[in-house]
Amino acid sequence: MTVGIIGLGLMGGSLAKAVKKYGIAKKVYGCVRNEAQKKEVLDLHLVDEVVDIETLKKESDLIVLAVPVDTIINFIPQLLDVDNETTIMDLGSTKEFIVKNVPTEIRKNFIAAHPMVGTEKNGPKAAIDDFYEGHTVVLCNLEDNESHHVKKALNLFQEIGMRIVKMDAKEHDVHACYMSHLPHAISFSLANTVMSHEDPKSIIALAAGGFKDMSRVAKSSPNMWTDIFKQNKDNLLDSMDLFQNHMNIVRELIENEKYDELAKWMGKANTLHEIL
Amino acid sequence: MTVGIIGLGLMGGSLAKAVKKYGIAKKVYGCVRNEAQKKEVLDLHLVDEVVDIETLKKESDLIVLAVPVDTIINFIPQLLDVDNETTIMDLGSTKEFIVKNVPTEIRKNFIAAHPMVGTEKNGPKAAIDDFYEGHTVVLCNLEDNESHHVKKALNLFQEIGMRIVKMDAKEHDVHACYMSHLPHAISFSLANTVMSHEDPKSIIALAAGGFKDMSRVAKSSPNMWTDIFKQNKDNLLDSMDLFQNHMNIVRELIENEKYDELAKWMGKANTLHEIL
Repeated sequence: MTVGIIGLGLMGGSLAKAVKKYGIAKKVYGCVRNEAQKKEVLDLHLVDEVVDIETLKKESDLIVLAVPVDTIINFIPQLLDVDNETTIMDLGSTKEFIVKNVPTEIRKNFIAAHPMVGTEKNGPKAAIDDFYEGHTVVLCNLEDNESHHVKKALNLFQEIGMRIVKMDAKEHDVHACYMSHLPHAISFSLANTVMSHEDPKSIIALAAGGFKDMSRVAKSSPNMWTDIFKQNKDNLLDSMDLFQNHMNIVRELIENEKYDELAKWMGKANTLHEIL
Repeated sequence: MTVGIIGLGLMGGSLAKAVKKYGIAKKVYGCVRNEAQKKEVLDLHLVDEVVDIETLKKESDLIVLAVPVDTIINFIPQLLDVDNETTIMDLGSTKEFIVKNVPTEIRKNFIAAHPMVGTEKNGPKAAIDDFYEGHTVVLCNLEDNESHHVKKALNLFQEIGMRIVKMDAKEHDVHACYMSHLPHAISFSLANTVMSHEDPKSIIALAAGGFKDMSRVAKSSPNMWTDIFKQNKDNLLDSMDLFQNHMNIVRELIENEKYDELAKWMGKANTLHEIL
């Protein structure tokens, strides 16, 4: 088939490489923002051709939206006239607002997907052909799609080596909040805390593995993550409150020197790793 | 020289392997808690001999305390009668309370060291011979030590491939708090938040790299970390308050939909990685 990918950063670029690697797409078209990106994408051989949106729509059996979640929303009106056979798919980190904003005309075509994989890197240069292998993709509200679009999506993700989980979009946004969006908010806060208190010399001298891991996702793109926080606002605020409760618990245990209880509380946190 | 190591978990066991690997010690003695540990340590060939504390004191040119920080404090009285030539060294994650608790009789012998390296793993089985290589060790208040003890410590850490940073113990505890102790408190809280809200099935399905990194140190030993939080209580409470301010900032920006400011705040967090 022919795959058209809108946005060729880490997610879109890696998908472009994967569909070529596994022989899923004979031809891959890309759509990017500007001439500089066009040159970069072609130099990196991510796609066969960079085309305008109209050509991409006409030629593709599958159109993939691999852009920040607010840009997905802005792009949807341009896809209203695709034919019944063309599958549209987004790879955004939020799902409820997106599925709600897909108009009836293309709702059957539109597969809401969230590959649960990412690094703090972004841009076309970060794209790698095995980025998705062994990871999970969440597909939401498939009951709203026509079966041949679902089949196309399932085949694609299976062939690039992903584990498929089906979920309601609302439910997805709650789980993705706790497992990804809240941790990002925390990492950004930790990075800003350390930057406001510590001098660069001490940071360089004393950063060990734990801190590097905890602050890694604070390197993520502000534009991409502002959009995600915006679209998952209510869940994120709730999860921040729950996290706050746990920070209050540990603070109270330390302040009042309840060290036996503190050890027990830490032991409870340890059990996460029995299931992970 | 002969090295005697008290405690043969990740830190002590890895040091035992390193001093053998680099030919720094001809003989390595170990002191452990019980018969089961003795068997484990000998089966793993971490030391040449497991001995009692009196033999270890008599035979060692360098005694290393590689036990949790409260256990270090409890052990010090047993070391009061070492001779002038014997160097004592601790590897604890807090330094101020420890140096304050070293009696005058052995203050000149006692090197306060904190190798800034660790994983969530612990116990003798976790020990590896290149654990310390390429990492930083902080040495505190060396002005209170006799020069030949300092020389012995500097040589040891240089030979096992560590970068040496000298620091006041009080200052160390502040920096170590922000760069290590606070991140641990946050990681334990995040793990407990997710455990209290999410079911195991969703955690397994949706845990991607970011969450795994952020919750990794929540696997750390509760006993070891309760001691550290106890000894660095005041700094930790201060740092938790500062982190709280930053969580309040991001919460307020999201709640009031100040998304341009939110992106700027994230951008500030990004700059951490220009220096790391």
